[in-house]
Amino acid sequence: MPRNSKHRLKKIGLPPGTLIHIGEQKIENTRIEIFDFDETHFQAKVVQSIDECFPFKDTPSVTWINIDGLHDIETIEKIGNYFDIHHLILEDILQTGQRPKFEDFGSYIYIVLRMFSYENDDHIKEEQISIILGANFVISFQEDIGDVFNPVRERIRSGRFQIKKRKADYLAYSLIDAVVDNYFIILEKLGEKIETIEDELMDNPKPETLQSIHQLKRKLIALRKSIWPLREVISRLERGESYLFEESTIIYLKDVHDHTIQVIDTIETFRDMASGMLDIYLSGMSNKMNEVMKVLTVIATIFIPLTFIVGIYGMNFEFMPELKWHLGYPLIWSIMIIVALGMMFYFYRKKWL
Amino acid sequence: MPRNSKHRLKKIGLPPGTLIHIGEQKIENTRIEIFDFDETHFQAKVVQSIDECFPFKDTPSVTWINIDGLHDIETIEKIGNYFDIHHLILEDILQTGQRPKFEDFGSYIYIVLRMFSYENDDHIKEEQISIILGANFVISFQEDIGDVFNPVRERIRSGRFQIKKRKADYLAYSLIDAVVDNYFIILEKLGEKIETIEDELMDNPKPETLQSIHQLKRKLIALRKSIWPLREVISRLERGESYLFEESTIIYLKDVHDHTIQVIDTIETFRDMASGMLDIYLSGMSNKMNEVMKVLTVIATIFIPLTFIVGIYGMNFEFMPELKWHLGYPLIWSIMIIVALGMMFYFYRKKWL
Amino acid sequence: MPRNSKHRLKKIGLPPGTLIHIGEQKIENTRIEIFDFDETHFQAKVVQSIDECFPFKDTPSVTWINIDGLHDIETIEKIGNYFDIHHLILEDILQTGQRPKFEDFGSYIYIVLRMFSYENDDHIKEEQISIILGANFVISFQEDIGDVFNPVRERIRSGRFQIKKRKADYLAYSLIDAVVDNYFIILEKLGEKIETIEDELMDNPKPETLQSIHQLKRKLIALRKSIWPLREVISRLERGESYLFEESTIIYLKDVHDHTIQVIDTIETFRDMASGMLDIYLSGMSNKMNEVMKVLTVIATIFIPLTFIVGIYGMNFEFMPELKWHLGYPLIWSIMIIVALGMMFYFYRKKWL
Amino acid sequence: MPRNSKHRLKKIGLPPGTLIHIGEQKIENTRIEIFDFDETHFQAKVVQSIDECFPFKDTPSVTWINIDGLHDIETIEKIGNYFDIHHLILEDILQTGQRPKFEDFGSYIYIVLRMFSYENDDHIKEEQISIILGANFVISFQEDIGDVFNPVRERIRSGRFQIKKRKADYLAYSLIDAVVDNYFIILEKLGEKIETIEDELMDNPKPETLQSIHQLKRKLIALRKSIWPLREVISRLERGESYLFEESTIIYLKDVHDHTIQVIDTIETFRDMASGMLDIYLSGMSNKMNEVMKVLTVIATIFIPLTFIVGIYGMNFEFMPELKWHLGYPLIWSIMIIVALGMMFYFYRKKWL
Amino acid sequence: MPRNSKHRLKKIGLPPGTLIHIGEQKIENTRIEIFDFDETHFQAKVVQSIDECFPFKDTPSVTWINIDGLHDIETIEKIGNYFDIHHLILEDILQTGQRPKFEDFGSYIYIVLRMFSYENDDHIKEEQISIILGANFVISFQEDIGDVFNPVRERIRSGRFQIKKRKADYLAYSLIDAVVDNYFIILEKLGEKIETIEDELMDNPKPETLQSIHQLKRKLIALRKSIWPLREVISRLERGESYLFEESTIIYLKDVHDHTIQVIDTIETFRDMASGMLDIYLSGMSNKMNEVMKVLTVIATIFIPLTFIVGIYGMNFEFMPELKWHLGYPLIWSIMIIVALGMMFYFYRKKWL
Repeated sequence: MPRNSKHRLKKIGLPPGTLIHIGEQKIENTRIEIFDFDETHFQAKVVQSIDECFPFKDTPSVTWINIDGLHDIETIEKIGNYFDIHHLILEDILQTGQRPKFEDFGSYIYIVLRMFSYENDDHIKEEQISIILGANFVISFQEDIGDVFNPVRERIRSGRFQIKKRKADYLAYSLIDAVVDNYFIILEKLGEKIETIEDELMDNPKPETLQSIHQLKRKLIALRKSIWPLREVISRLERGESYLFEESTIIYLKDVHDHTIQVIDTIETFRDMASGMLDIYLSGMSNKMNEVMKVLTVIATIFIPLTFIVGIYGMNFEFMPELKWHLGYPLIWSIMIIVALGMMFYFYRKKWL
Repeated sequence: MPRNSKHRLKKIGLPPGTLIHIGEQKIENTRIEIFDFDETHFQAKVVQSIDECFPFKDTPSVTWINIDGLHDIETIEKIGNYFDIHHLILEDILQTGQRPKFEDFGSYIYIVLRMFSYENDDHIKEEQISIILGANFVISFQEDIGDVFNPVRERIRSGRFQIKKRKADYLAYSLIDAVVDNYFIILEKLGEKIETIEDELMDNPKPETLQSIHQLKRKLIALRKSIWPLREVISRLERGESYLFEESTIIYLKDVHDHTIQVIDTIETFRDMASGMLDIYLSGMSNKMNEVMKVLTVIATIFIPLTFIVGIYGMNFEFMPELKWHLGYPLIWSIMIIVALGMMFYFYRKKWL
Repeated sequence: MPRNSKHRLKKIGLPPGTLIHIGEQKIENTRIEIFDFDETHFQAKVVQSIDECFPFKDTPSVTWINIDGLHDIETIEKIGNYFDIHHLILEDILQTGQRPKFEDFGSYIYIVLRMFSYENDDHIKEEQISIILGANFVISFQEDIGDVFNPVRERIRSGRFQIKKRKADYLAYSLIDAVVDNYFIILEKLGEKIETIEDELMDNPKPETLQSIHQLKRKLIALRKSIWPLREVISRLERGESYLFEESTIIYLKDVHDHTIQVIDTIETFRDMASGMLDIYLSGMSNKMNEVMKVLTVIATIFIPLTFIVGIYGMNFEFMPELKWHLGYPLIWSIMIIVALGMMFYFYRKKWL
Repeated sequence: MPRNSKHRLKKIGLPPGTLIHIGEQKIENTRIEIFDFDETHFQAKVVQSIDECFPFKDTPSVTWINIDGLHDIETIEKIGNYFDIHHLILEDILQTGQRPKFEDFGSYIYIVLRMFSYENDDHIKEEQISIILGANFVISFQEDIGDVFNPVRERIRSGRFQIKKRKADYLAYSLIDAVVDNYFIILEKLGEKIETIEDELMDNPKPETLQSIHQLKRKLIALRKSIWPLREVISRLERGESYLFEESTIIYLKDVHDHTIQVIDTIETFRDMASGMLDIYLSGMSNKMNEVMKVLTVIATIFIPLTFIVGIYGMNFEFMPELKWHLGYPLIWSIMIIVALGMMFYFYRKKWL
Repeated sequence: MPRNSKHRLKKIGLPPGTLIHIGEQKIENTRIEIFDFDETHFQAKVVQSIDECFPFKDTPSVTWINIDGLHDIETIEKIGNYFDIHHLILEDILQTGQRPKFEDFGSYIYIVLRMFSYENDDHIKEEQISIILGANFVISFQEDIGDVFNPVRERIRSGRFQIKKRKADYLAYSLIDAVVDNYFIILEKLGEKIETIEDELMDNPKPETLQSIHQLKRKLIALRKSIWPLREVISRLERGESYLFEESTIIYLKDVHDHTIQVIDTIETFRDMASGMLDIYLSGMSNKMNEVMKVLTVIATIFIPLTFIVGIYGMNFEFMPELKWHLGYPLIWSIMIIVALGMMFYFYRKKWL
């Protein structure tokens, strides 16, 4: 069953705003990483305690705090207090079954995204990314170590790209963009899977093929569920609902919006394809059955009459004149050969042979 | 058939506003429970008569009156008179097949919710919860004893939580939240049911499996019907349609709204899954049939020609030279073995063996 | 085919506004019934000619004229002239295939409803109810004698209820309410039908069961088509589009609106159930087929090889050593029993037995 | 394939506004008919050249020019010049695959409708009707001679009806009304077709029945495609988008709007019915198969074991004691009869007999 | 898998605005073509370097620059700099998996279209067309040489058409119109394909027919995905969102809008037809199976009992009186003939023969 509803149960009955991590604990220790940069300087480090991050809050430079692992409630609470985040938001960060959403609190906004990755060949891992964007800081929360933000880190480090010259809103955009770009990799893999299944359907459909089609459909349903609301989220940001996004960044959000629609379009196309494959599978099965039936019918209808004929001359009546005929035996062979050929001609004309 | 339309029949032909309990009487005696609290004091008791509640109406503290059992028309009428509730609302409270709705009468609002619980392993019990929220009171009506409000009662009692410091609107929110939170338990159980059915589908699909899938689908349809309108209800409250909800509570309603959407999303996913399972079941059945047909075909097509051959030499013609041959019998065995092996090779290549 | 399009043909080619009764003539004589009442007086009679009704028009009391039978064009025309009704409305009254609609002419409004009743056990009779509501009068037109308005008549007569104290708008509401309430009876009967079909599906599905399911589906489609637009009609009235409905009546319309939505919801649920039953029927059929095939396969695959074996020793070769063995016959029996048991064990393991 | 896309090809690559007739040329000579009337006078004639019509343009009376046949580009161009019609409209008139639409050019409006007629028993002929409505004139363009406007012509001629007293907008309304009224005849015929197919389904479903169902579905799809946009067209006219339609005519447009919705509703119902018939057909086919299988199974499973038994006593072992028994033969008959009856009883209980 | 997501992968991780060609490189050398014209002069040439185009920018005449091939990043960048195009637009031009869209930058607008052509008999080639429209210039970008703009070029060259007298907006319209007109050719070919498949379905449905139907469906899905958003694009242009399109051109856009809707309508109709064909195919298959079963059943049920009868008189009991009868043999033949005829009569009445 979907993880979100399962883990939510821990929470039931607690007063709203109680901080409790809902979801699997995926790593042992929370990992806190901090980037601080502006056009002229750059600093990046992994810190042991969240307290080390707070001094950066009051500098004018852009500060990005990235937290991997959500089980350390204390750290989250400290951030909440220091950056003055509403306790319901902290709750949402910790509750890892959110659908993508966007909430505007004036001085900061809260965005939830869902990140996908292929864990091994066939399993898609889903992770919740929470982003808090303030005037000069971005805080991102992930469930696990390992993400899709390395290109962003590279660009900050190299210093050659606009990201260093721009504000926190552009950094937030870059993170969203990285997540959306990554969806194309998932689609690519699913596309390959579709090709594999199609080849299987052509060559030799098996019951396992049906399993594959249904697993594919299910993945597409899950992806769609997680990506569909994102369209609305980005569209609201793009319409300028939050003043934290500057005009010059909004045009980039339009670009992300286009990509999201493209992802959703592709998912829809894949779903149509999966339905088509189901039809092909089912009719392939019924073709096979048809073929089996034809073989049975051809063999049975040729030999059953013949067996009847030989049965006749196996009877023990005392007075059966044919049995005494010298040519009786070859004659009966001739009759049987004629019957068999007639049958075969009939089947040939019916296209069953 | 759905309970609501069945029980409504009692009512047909009566003038609007006639108070009559529509639905099963689930308990013998109406149970009235009262909570009165503010930041500094707290009082809770079960009262015998509704009249004992009325003095609390005029104190500034928050008063929560909870009524279990709807067959005692007199009590309901007294409440209606004392709190000045429109008689159509009283009618709606007593008529237990309402869909979730919200009506605003200025000085108070009326909210209908539907509560679910698993009665025994396989039956979902549905109950109508009516909530009336006024400036400093909340009245809740239930069909039966036993509900999902114990955590709320606990929080009021313990006095440690914000619920004690806030107004009646927060109490109403807490009740709604408790109902919505409880949906996740139902979903959890349904999720487990889906897993069970899926295992059955893999191992050994039976006609009973189909029954289970259809029962599941039906439950999902019923849940959806009861929860879908709630989304609109909460969305309207959250948009601030009633001035009884303060700004600081509305942010909590947003949270409930998110949860409701999550519940609906999960129901939709479950429905998709149920459809998928139906497909798998049906194609599993047809696979089985295929297999049965193959066995029949293989056996019949191997032995029918052989039976013909032995039939030939069972004929009683006087002049059949082969019968006199010394090696006739072993020869015929050889021919039959060759025919049988040829057939088997053919079936092997067709992948029927 | 649906009655409406069939009967409309009479009308084609005539200029708009031509009064011609479209539909079956269901009774011989038009029956005109009049109620006139206010808080203090009450009068009811069946009149021979519509002219007797006109004097009531100018009294301030509420006048309800109910006409059963639409074939008497003259009467309709007179009403049209006297109450100044647009001739297109008169045309709509006579044309009995209208969908529910509401038209506002300022000084009066025109409402079309569809009334259902079970004529005999299995046939649903549909009737068009036209209601014209003016400042102090209501005129209702029915196709046939016999309706769902008796409870309303009772309430007016008894004088105990608010209907006598209120205006014509409340009377109109009461009529609409009576029609909508009556839908629940139809739903109740359909619900029973669904239960019957379900029992049949469990016990012994027959081709007739399929017929029943399809008849049910068709009834649901027809009901839905006739009730769906009503939702919009009442919603527009409730939003206060016509000033003829007073604020104090509109709250009652909200109630009817809720009931209409409940009816539509139930119809949708029934349709989902009917689809589910179709699936169960079809897979039940294919299960039966499966079972038939299994019996054939088991019998045929057990006996075909045995028949081959006995065929061998029915051959007439002169040199067949086994025939001379003393224990040949019991030996062959043993072999056959082993083969048969082996087959049965195989089928047992395959769960075909 | 649909005619519209096929014929459009002629046009591709030409500059917009190039007048070329797209569609089949259905008649040899264009036929031009003119009606000119007001309350006091009336004139109707068939003219040879369009020039004869132009003098009527400047009289205050209502002028209706009806043109049958669209291949005479010159005539169309002259009209365009004289009445000052935009060349894109002329293009649309000549291009006969338009969907219903309405365009407002201030001094005149352009309306496209689609007219249907049954050509022979089974083929529905579709024709494009273009109507241009100006202050005091209506020009209608048809592809072929023969239309549904005769009742309108009659009404103008007889002089008894309001059409003679009203303006060009009422004439335009009358033409639209005639086209929509005619849809009911098509629906009537389709309804009869549905009844025929249903009878066939009950009595003796054949593969041809499936063909009929599919042809029906296709016709319904085509009708729906051509009528659906009309709803929007009339709704826009009725909302008063063009000042050419006077208030007193708009109420008539509402009537046409209702009829259009009724037509669409009926088409939807027919589509639902066609789907239901497909289900019935398919399950009827599978029932037949079931029956065939049962007969085979019953016969085969009764006689295969019996054949085995007689095979046993056809063996030629020297030592088979039963063969010597005096009562062996009747005994074996008894056994076989018992086996056969046992089988039949089994099948009887399984309801296969 | 769809090309767009596959090729996008190259791009992942790069900062936004990085120019990189995403898609196949279809030609070796970029081809740059320039048209410059106004009412009085006309000039057209193919240039080697984009720099030769820039002088035309500042003349008042209309300049059309057409670029075939997108791999030459440098050229694109130069255009971007010279015409001051936002770098995200340049990125979109190079990324060839865009859905149709329209973006307004005030001084210029950017439109993406998708062009289709039949490459060989069965493969539809899809190409992205980007159009940039400024005050007095149009720049179009194509992936490959060969397009649908030749008629436009012809009209400019000939000088007889309005295109020469009008502004750049009319040129942009003409290009869009050419692309949309071309869709009709694709639809025409698909229509022919549908006819071919339908003939195949009538004559001799084969598994390959199913393949064809699914390929057809897939093409329709792809077309729909690429054309559907165009409707919105043109509708926004037509509503006058950009001041670059003059009033007199907007009426032409309405025309294109109509065509686009017609294309989408036809695609929807084709999809409905494809679904219908699938149904016919499947039921054709099951009819065939039925027929196979009937032949088997008839033959088997006639001969199995007969074989049993001859088996009886093949038994070797010493005391079988019938064997001694003189007329035993002809008698048994008579019985068998009667049984066979009885069976055949039964099957005849069941319509299996």
